[in-house]
Amino acid sequence: MMGTTLEAIKAKYEEAKAKNLNLDMQRGKPGNEQLDLALPMLDLVTSSDYKNEGDVDPRNYGGLDGTPAMKELFKEFLEVSSVGEVIIGGNSSLNLMHDTVARAMSHGVVGSEQPWNKLEKVKFLCPSPGYDRHFSVCEHFGIEMVLVDMTAEGPDCDQIEALVANDASIKGIWVVPKYGNPTGITCSDEVVKRLATMPVAAGDFRIFWDNAYAVHHLEEEEDQLANILDACKAAGNEDRVFIYGSTSKISFAGAGVAAMGGSKANMDWMRKHLSMATIGPDKLNQLRHLRFFKNMEGVKAHMKKHAEILKPKFDTVIEVLENELGGKGLAKWTKPKGGYFISLDTNEGCAKRVVELANEAGVKLTGAGATYPYKKDPKDCNIRLAPSCPSVDEIRQAMEVVCLCVAIADAEKNA
Amino acid sequence: MMGTTLEAIKAKYEEAKAKNLNLDMQRGKPGNEQLDLALPMLDLVTSSDYKNEGDVDPRNYGGLDGTPAMKELFKEFLEVSSVGEVIIGGNSSLNLMHDTVARAMSHGVVGSEQPWNKLEKVKFLCPSPGYDRHFSVCEHFGIEMVLVDMTAEGPDCDQIEALVANDASIKGIWVVPKYGNPTGITCSDEVVKRLATMPVAAGDFRIFWDNAYAVHHLEEEEDQLANILDACKAAGNEDRVFIYGSTSKISFAGAGVAAMGGSKANMDWMRKHLSMATIGPDKLNQLRHLRFFKNMEGVKAHMKKHAEILKPKFDTVIEVLENELGGKGLAKWTKPKGGYFISLDTNEGCAKRVVELANEAGVKLTGAGATYPYKKDPKDCNIRLAPSCPSVDEIRQAMEVVCLCVAIADAEKNA
Repeated sequence: MMGTTLEAIKAKYEEAKAKNLNLDMQRGKPGNEQLDLALPMLDLVTSSDYKNEGDVDPRNYGGLDGTPAMKELFKEFLEVSSVGEVIIGGNSSLNLMHDTVARAMSHGVVGSEQPWNKLEKVKFLCPSPGYDRHFSVCEHFGIEMVLVDMTAEGPDCDQIEALVANDASIKGIWVVPKYGNPTGITCSDEVVKRLATMPVAAGDFRIFWDNAYAVHHLEEEEDQLANILDACKAAGNEDRVFIYGSTSKISFAGAGVAAMGGSKANMDWMRKHLSMATIGPDKLNQLRHLRFFKNMEGVKAHMKKHAEILKPKFDTVIEVLENELGGKGLAKWTKPKGGYFISLDTNEGCAKRVVELANEAGVKLTGAGATYPYKKDPKDCNIRLAPSCPSVDEIRQAMEVVCLCVAIADAEKNA
Repeated sequence: MMGTTLEAIKAKYEEAKAKNLNLDMQRGKPGNEQLDLALPMLDLVTSSDYKNEGDVDPRNYGGLDGTPAMKELFKEFLEVSSVGEVIIGGNSSLNLMHDTVARAMSHGVVGSEQPWNKLEKVKFLCPSPGYDRHFSVCEHFGIEMVLVDMTAEGPDCDQIEALVANDASIKGIWVVPKYGNPTGITCSDEVVKRLATMPVAAGDFRIFWDNAYAVHHLEEEEDQLANILDACKAAGNEDRVFIYGSTSKISFAGAGVAAMGGSKANMDWMRKHLSMATIGPDKLNQLRHLRFFKNMEGVKAHMKKHAEILKPKFDTVIEVLENELGGKGLAKWTKPKGGYFISLDTNEGCAKRVVELANEAGVKLTGAGATYPYKKDPKDCNIRLAPSCPSVDEIRQAMEVVCLCVAIADAEKNA
């Protein structure tokens, strides 16, 4: 595109449009090749071999917070100290997060003076760009969202510290700490420490630590994330954090196992609430996962195979961006070492138009604004790119269209 | 026991106690023999055969309210008119019920002027004896429970009509309409009709219709339950009822499929809430169930096998009760044609002591009072007997002990 005139770019865009493309880079879901990797799991629990070793019968009721063996595995996975600090859920960590917020609203958490819904106002800090479903949960429960910027090291702690120190209505913050959605950024040790130690006006403030991409590396050199629960404990704030994880993007996105972790007091609180709501999650599916992965080494080895599939896809996105937009001042983008997304920032006021143009040319992108509270990107510049599902060829085609759209939208803006 | 002196009874009790029995008639859970019947299901979704016909990939995200084929099956199961009136959940209908109440509290239901938690008081009618977990949900959300008596035809509609007509704070009623827990009673057509048609002060009143034992017959001659949703629609009250069911006591108690039904407007309300809380339930497990049962005929045929296992167990309970306590004026009991429980009523003020004496002799029974709101049986007479898990021999032993305990407790009471 270097040196090409706007007319030439528009001509190329019309050419692409005429191809009736049908490409989708919207959804952060695993591709079929990734799902295939876990298929042998389906053969590991059968009519003749379905018994947990030493556990309750996995076919029957029981096991409110998971089977002992599954809790052991997730103790490692969530990097907590004991199985008492783990709760195994159903197939959805989003569900665990939603329910935690719902319960905090209806009953309060450990240390609350009253249920959050009795307060005049409840606010959550929302580092953005971030995960739209976190923001939907807030909106659903009438929690006011306060935008906090992302830095290259994670959420902006200067902003956060200033806000939480003086405003007791700020009860929570959403953080995707590793290979964040959509930035791919991993919180630095400094950020983890500041979040764990900062003085907070609300006695029942909670960090919702959605570690969705804990083992989802793309490179040999992996990002390292400091242990938030340890940091909170060291600071005497052990009840400050709820940690979430799942195998949704490890085994099967619709049939994985979710879990949460945190201090014993926090988990006891959650167990008490769970005991009102269910007899327990599906233990046969826990057994399938346990037999397939065996332990954390098994999980990590499995994720290396995911990386082999995903890395060429991410590389293609970056390659096309660099070839087509590099050095032009039209956009910036992240180069994550893991996770599911690349975050593309256009110049101000262009993102919506880029997504619109791309859609018109048959390339579906996540709606502009989706990565911000109330779906409002104040600078209208952020676009989330999700390369996991399409093939490398499709990604190349899609990204070439996206780059044309960026150039056109920028030119329109400056016309 | 007929004609035996109290001393002889006490001697027998001490004899039983010396045996160090370890018998459990507490829990309404399927026995291993029943669970074995569904084992072939575990072989029906494998690494080489896991695809839904025409549906979304069951391994990936999607299917918020279930796969189309599973909704078809549960349309029949729940006896609703269209798949739009069905929502497939995870593995627990209790969870669906809990979440419905939680959402009504935080947001209100269709027709609510405001969320229920904004009201000064919310009350539910609790026909009793009933299911303790329904009552726990109420207590958890601060919903005041109003005891309503059970008649041989179901909840006492004279009491109910008088209460709901004038008190707009009464927002709901729990009903286990078929082979009720613990009475085994099935609502008569008249009761169903009155519940559907009765004038209600609260515009957003809901019947929580927990049809947990819909196909759980013990006899050739099955109880027939009138269609509550049809009755509500005919009366112009189509949003009045939420219907719940599951395969927990059909396939696997910990790994079944739960579902709910109701008017399109009610289900759309629930779908909107679900979309905030999850991407969707486990579709691989739905596929397993679908392939195993195929259709409602398959479900019914399967339940005939359950009946063959359960009927001798229920018969044994009744037989021992009749032999040991028949005609003595010490107790009454139900003879259900389905479900999971037999309800034993001692004379007033004896139930707690019976359970205590039985426990001391190694026979675990559901805590006396558990079948009433706030765990308070006003007459202290109801005991729930759950014969599904122990063997026929164990049931015989256990029931002989229970009968001794009834006689002793009654004698103590009258001493």
